[in-house]
Amino acid sequence: MIVSYDGTSYNGFQSQPNRNTVQDKLEEAIWHLTGETVKVLASGRTDAGVHARGQVFNFLTESQIPVERWCVAMNTRLPQDIAVYAARELPLDFHSRRSAKKKTYKYRIRIGRHRDVFQYRTEYHHYKRLNLEEMRKALKHLEGEHDFTSFCSVRSDKPSHVRTIYEAKLEFTPDVFPFSDDSGMIEISITGNGFLYNMVRIIVGTLLQVGEGRRKSSDFPAILKAMDRSKAGPTAEPHGLILWEVEYAEFQKSP
Amino acid sequence: MIVSYDGTSYNGFQSQPNRNTVQDKLEEAIWHLTGETVKVLASGRTDAGVHARGQVFNFLTESQIPVERWCVAMNTRLPQDIAVYAARELPLDFHSRRSAKKKTYKYRIRIGRHRDVFQYRTEYHHYKRLNLEEMRKALKHLEGEHDFTSFCSVRSDKPSHVRTIYEAKLEFTPDVFPFSDDSGMIEISITGNGFLYNMVRIIVGTLLQVGEGRRKSSDFPAILKAMDRSKAGPTAEPHGLILWEVEYAEFQKSP
Repeated sequence: MIVSYDGTSYNGFQSQPNRNTVQDKLEEAIWHLTGETVKVLASGRTDAGVHARGQVFNFLTESQIPVERWCVAMNTRLPQDIAVYAARELPLDFHSRRSAKKKTYKYRIRIGRHRDVFQYRTEYHHYKRLNLEEMRKALKHLEGEHDFTSFCSVRSDKPSHVRTIYEAKLEFTPDVFPFSDDSGMIEISITGNGFLYNMVRIIVGTLLQVGEGRRKSSDFPAILKAMDRSKAGPTAEPHGLILWEVEYAEFQKSP
Repeated sequence: MIVSYDGTSYNGFQSQPNRNTVQDKLEEAIWHLTGETVKVLASGRTDAGVHARGQVFNFLTESQIPVERWCVAMNTRLPQDIAVYAARELPLDFHSRRSAKKKTYKYRIRIGRHRDVFQYRTEYHHYKRLNLEEMRKALKHLEGEHDFTSFCSVRSDKPSHVRTIYEAKLEFTPDVFPFSDDSGMIEISITGNGFLYNMVRIIVGTLLQVGEGRRKSSDFPAILKAMDRSKAGPTAEPHGLILWEVEYAEFQKSP
């Protein structure tokens, strides 16, 4: 299944004792629908406050409900800020995390004096202008295969921090709101074969320092090479981050 | 001042005893900033759940705070879902309601099987496709000067229900989300010299019946002519409605 959620009200994707998570809501909806207690497995956890447009999860069910009925049936049993967009039956060896080939995250930064009251839940608000060209140059240094230890939380338990970034880009859309001052939306999109704990948020936190002129884009190769979390910038706030898409080669894009 | 708000959490714009309104929040912010107890006067009230992009209000203050500092000072004292975008000093005879020359409302309808988890607060979700061409034709019948009694709540206390609609149009933007089925956003924009109580919501409620094939666009002239609320359709839900812009000839657009 492909699911979107506004993560504002949740303690992240993954179930935790006595905490309100997206996984809990999905499992409750499936229980209401089928009477089965299932465990859903996602393409990866998202942190508290992080959103998803195209998170993917799978589970086993013996339900006889036809697959094309599942989305609407789930959505009537889910809170308004979670919605399932697609459902497919797949071979038993499909694994939403291990079968994933590519993931794309987006981080949105609103530039301008004033917040946008309709979007503030899903964008980070930065008052001052940023040097977008320097930020774009910094992102280019991330493309390719690198050890991303510097851009990974020290709490990571992964044996290897080597990942491949296929594309890292920045787009700016100026506001059309006529009362604004050079304001607009920065969208940073990063596609890779996998992401480490807090990796996109640490990249964005470091990139903000580049945009503010406190670091240079040309510092990025040395930060990577150091393999030391303390050489990178702070972890950006969660609410600007959206898990955009997960791609599966074997089972086709958007299962 | 020009103010935007997400009306989801408020009992409308106008103050009411013991109720949480946008006006209360604005007056509280001004009190925190200046120590003055002021009464703010808006271009018009908006109902509970209705939003505004460019609502205009005015008030009297003896504060010495320079006008260019007001927006940021207000926004730090307002909840996240209310933000002031512009502030100007105007002659004492400016009156945000009586001086207004034109207003534009937008009503947004999301078409598709599934809700959008990032936008559901500010759009009405309609599962099935609508006949957009018939809806466009119906809107054209509203342009010009008419008595809008049929499209006005019976609770209206206005002496005249004659208003002029300068433009009434419908735009459709298909979704880019790749997993969707003919889904997209309908935006109905209506600009007039003034609007009656529930007028846009009753127009949209009637228009939805046209889109569903339960009425014809050619019924609209007879509905207007009847001057009878019961001849029009139901009042559409508030959360799709946004007060988009208020224009002032004398004091220039966007004071």
